[in-house]
Amino acid sequence: MLETIGAPSDLRKLTFEQMEKLAQEIRSYLLEIVSRTGGHLAPNLGVVELTIALHYVFDSPRDKIVWDVGHQSYVHKILTGRREEMKTLRQYKGLSGFPKRSESAHDCFETGHSSTSISAALGFALARDLKQEKHSVIAVIGDGALTGGMAYEALNHAGQLGTRLIVLLNDNEMSITRNVGAMSGYLSRLRTDPLYHRSKDEVREILQRIPNIGPRMFKAAERFKDSVKYLLVSGMLFEELGFTYLGPIDGHNLRMLNQVLQRARLLPGPVLVHVNTIKGKGYLPAEKKPNKFHGIGPFDLKTGKTRRGGAPSFTDVFSKTVIELGKDHPELVTITAAMSEGTGLCEFARKYPKRFFDVGIAEEHAVTLASGLAQNGCIPVVAVYSTFLQRAYDQIVHDAALQDLHIIFALDRAGIVGEDGETHHGIFDLSYLRHIPRMTVMVPMNQSELVAMLKSSLHYHGPIAIRYPRGAGPQEEVDYHMPELPLGKGDVLRKGEDLVMFAVGPLVYQALEAAEQLSREGKEAAVINCRFVKPLDEKLIVDWSNRTKRVITLEENVMAGGFGSAVLELLADNGFKGEAARMGIPDSFPAHGATDLLRRSIGLDAAGIVDIINGKGWFNN
Amino acid sequence: MLETIGAPSDLRKLTFEQMEKLAQEIRSYLLEIVSRTGGHLAPNLGVVELTIALHYVFDSPRDKIVWDVGHQSYVHKILTGRREEMKTLRQYKGLSGFPKRSESAHDCFETGHSSTSISAALGFALARDLKQEKHSVIAVIGDGALTGGMAYEALNHAGQLGTRLIVLLNDNEMSITRNVGAMSGYLSRLRTDPLYHRSKDEVREILQRIPNIGPRMFKAAERFKDSVKYLLVSGMLFEELGFTYLGPIDGHNLRMLNQVLQRARLLPGPVLVHVNTIKGKGYLPAEKKPNKFHGIGPFDLKTGKTRRGGAPSFTDVFSKTVIELGKDHPELVTITAAMSEGTGLCEFARKYPKRFFDVGIAEEHAVTLASGLAQNGCIPVVAVYSTFLQRAYDQIVHDAALQDLHIIFALDRAGIVGEDGETHHGIFDLSYLRHIPRMTVMVPMNQSELVAMLKSSLHYHGPIAIRYPRGAGPQEEVDYHMPELPLGKGDVLRKGEDLVMFAVGPLVYQALEAAEQLSREGKEAAVINCRFVKPLDEKLIVDWSNRTKRVITLEENVMAGGFGSAVLELLADNGFKGEAARMGIPDSFPAHGATDLLRRSIGLDAAGIVDIINGKGWFNN
Repeated sequence: MLETIGAPSDLRKLTFEQMEKLAQEIRSYLLEIVSRTGGHLAPNLGVVELTIALHYVFDSPRDKIVWDVGHQSYVHKILTGRREEMKTLRQYKGLSGFPKRSESAHDCFETGHSSTSISAALGFALARDLKQEKHSVIAVIGDGALTGGMAYEALNHAGQLGTRLIVLLNDNEMSITRNVGAMSGYLSRLRTDPLYHRSKDEVREILQRIPNIGPRMFKAAERFKDSVKYLLVSGMLFEELGFTYLGPIDGHNLRMLNQVLQRARLLPGPVLVHVNTIKGKGYLPAEKKPNKFHGIGPFDLKTGKTRRGGAPSFTDVFSKTVIELGKDHPELVTITAAMSEGTGLCEFARKYPKRFFDVGIAEEHAVTLASGLAQNGCIPVVAVYSTFLQRAYDQIVHDAALQDLHIIFALDRAGIVGEDGETHHGIFDLSYLRHIPRMTVMVPMNQSELVAMLKSSLHYHGPIAIRYPRGAGPQEEVDYHMPELPLGKGDVLRKGEDLVMFAVGPLVYQALEAAEQLSREGKEAAVINCRFVKPLDEKLIVDWSNRTKRVITLEENVMAGGFGSAVLELLADNGFKGEAARMGIPDSFPAHGATDLLRRSIGLDAAGIVDIINGKGWFNN
Repeated sequence: MLETIGAPSDLRKLTFEQMEKLAQEIRSYLLEIVSRTGGHLAPNLGVVELTIALHYVFDSPRDKIVWDVGHQSYVHKILTGRREEMKTLRQYKGLSGFPKRSESAHDCFETGHSSTSISAALGFALARDLKQEKHSVIAVIGDGALTGGMAYEALNHAGQLGTRLIVLLNDNEMSITRNVGAMSGYLSRLRTDPLYHRSKDEVREILQRIPNIGPRMFKAAERFKDSVKYLLVSGMLFEELGFTYLGPIDGHNLRMLNQVLQRARLLPGPVLVHVNTIKGKGYLPAEKKPNKFHGIGPFDLKTGKTRRGGAPSFTDVFSKTVIELGKDHPELVTITAAMSEGTGLCEFARKYPKRFFDVGIAEEHAVTLASGLAQNGCIPVVAVYSTFLQRAYDQIVHDAALQDLHIIFALDRAGIVGEDGETHHGIFDLSYLRHIPRMTVMVPMNQSELVAMLKSSLHYHGPIAIRYPRGAGPQEEVDYHMPELPLGKGDVLRKGEDLVMFAVGPLVYQALEAAEQLSREGKEAAVINCRFVKPLDEKLIVDWSNRTKRVITLEENVMAGGFGSAVLELLADNGFKGEAARMGIPDSFPAHGATDLLRRSIGLDAAGIVDIINGKGWFNN
């Protein structure tokens, strides 16, 4: 059946029974693909029927479907002519795990970060109205993404404008881990609403028993009409915000989905369709552990087991260290934004539940909440992926830094993240944090240094960021007893008089390897692990620069405004007269694929460093 | 009466009649002060009784009052021992117009940007609970600030946790201009609620007439109980989010305020107190035009007229130009975030109401909405203050730049803004925008160049930022017929062989003045108006740098990662061997005060430039 679907229009030739069969085939195909490539399995298993129904009812690409976050767009990709290419999913030069306009006209808006879809879809709808076009615009958003403030900003705006727009709320009671927030409780009350399972007629019957009321009661009766509406119409909260609420409906029932979407399609204003789905639906290991199977590496289909091994990841080490520090520091509290597993805070949460806060997908609130805590004697550790902390740039400036509050930002997934690609690389943090006054910005070269930095940061002051990459660290063995680090001090790992490499992060290892190679060519390079992007070890950097006259900076961050720029600024301020070259991410968005391939493609490895140095012609005269 | 109030505790010696008299005295005093210093008049006139009641009921600084935005904290300052110092309001080294911890223990959290108070207050409350303390925490937030997504993130989180916390919603139907959003409509329905004016007993009476229902109806009846709650309790939307809703009450009635706040103080969980106030209350010109008197310069108390004059501001010129461009470009739409007056878009809104969108205080939504519009053939002009666009940094990266969408960002109030101070200076934009791939970043040296840049930007592609300062521009006469500018080209304004100054923005004039002074000292400086921070005019900059060997960069932005860094990066990449110095804002938050004083204090004027150059000793040998 699946092979007969070359485009969404092919769906409309099928009966509901055939589409149900198709759904099962898609599930099998998803499992086959993702167990090999890795990817966002559980979210896609949950939206199989929902995606079929969307493409059955609506006419994409004329009608526009905007996927919030976008990691649930695999089924959409399969149905829109990319079935075969799915085999290259998330691989270098293969299909992206997120909507990409370059892949298909059916991908009308690119996403990756959460909670943007309603804003974007409203933009689509307003442009449509200005051009007097007639198509439908649908934002598909999960209940997790609904915890993000900008989703509310968009609901609030759309509800007021009354623009024709469909918001499809895919409610699986999950963001990535179990959902949080009062809104989640509200949705759950809707889900268990008795009206869901019964005819509304019964309720009307009760109402009709209410006797007529006199004119004195007239005003109260007006109010009562609203009350009746509340009684009849679930989702009054959305109704108050100007949306027509439809639902909740079973998101695995194609007939019901079709019925409600057809109705939604014809409504003249904004409508919210509340659909209940089961994350991981149809694959038992994923239904049982939707969290584990949210985003997953290659796994064994039969057992659900992933291959794991290798050196401990920075995340693991962060996880252990923060628990250890929490023991002696009752003032240490931790905060994450729907990423307790991903950031490794889940263990801390189990151990110190009162000192752990998962705020949902709400990075802005996370940082200002931390500021409030810090202002009152707590030391908050805010663990968020580098790319998601971008959401809270203003709060870091305005709440944390301006008040010089002691907050530790643990930025996981910094630098190149690999398969998640463009939207997820954490390649701007050194640039967006370094220029903020009062920040301390650190980059550990390995897991043990992360331990040392976390320990040390308890005794520094003001806002402090520590950024470290995804996945296995360079060390097999981690030293959990590392001493504290003096603030703003780098470390000379290798001496050499011909040039100096200033590096931060695991790139230090590449620098050392490059230095070995250069040494074999007769050029002696000093390698300095700078550790601090702010404050810089000014004396060390200036002295070594003047000594060798040739400087290379190394960072896994965009080259504009980051660590290398900081070194250039320092050297310019000190009248340095030699040569300086920066290495880092070029001024573009790196693609998706294995991290080693991506790094090689931009020359961010030992071979690339040697090439750059030799290409400079510094040793030609 | 006012002179007897040295601390909040003095309030508790007064009768309600005396406090009412005090309120009138405070209004007179506010008018006297603000008519001389300028400041946020209307918001403070609106919260006189509310602030008195807060300090009467609660025991600050033990109890914590967090002011959202903070521009409504004047009355609070007067009541907390700063009555006399109010005369120095907003002046250099005088009292700040916002809460400042350095001023008073009663200012427990600093604000300036909107919608942070509930997050911060929740942090305060959670820290209190961890330390097993008992004090109250109150966030005072306007209905305007409630349109900001992070306020919702915080409500959602607080509602779930059930933490004891008071959110005082100061509802004046305004953010800065008339409020927008469906939430605003909701609040207005609450305001006009018939229950507001009558006893709830009448409503109960109706309910009692409902006959008993049989067991078959039991489930519906359960639901019915909620319905009854909706009937009796206004503010169900907040109730659904886990808050107890009290109100709405008259925010100018001290007795009623006292009664409700006393009740709120004793409630064990989160409570939202809905208070209706009149912005500008007690001063007729401000009541009539709350928008004009929101933030205002010195004015004549009798007539309400402000002194105005001087050269046209960048805002005026933006306002006119965008209307002009809108004439020939039906695809041009404009977006602002509650700043239609401040950004000058109000005229465009009147002329092209369908192509104008005020999204409320919701910068994140504004940028992604623009992305949706841009993806569908519109060219959105997003006009937001530089400091507030910080809120949308992630959306600029993730929605606009990643998809290379043609959006024009008009950043008003860039650089030093003056009296609003620390929280409002727009001094990071060049740094936070420049490192984003695909951005074009421009800075006009005068109003005519702003015209040229706006025109040109319609024909560039991708996301484009134009940043310009507050207030009168350097030109008396504006040329509205300026030709378009070639992308990434600077302009040599003065030749000279001894050094070169690369400047952007009105600082170009200071550079020219400094060059004149230097010329009198026998040093000939070239002055180049670079216009573009990205892309740089690479050839021009490298050539002139190599020619003079001495380089100065000038920008009204932090020196880390901004325009100067871009020049250093370019020069390093091109093996420049001379001297380069950057001038800009040092690595700290500039204070408040008159812009000329602030600029002088950091040497960002002609005299400062001459000093730096002479201080470098470049001409000593």
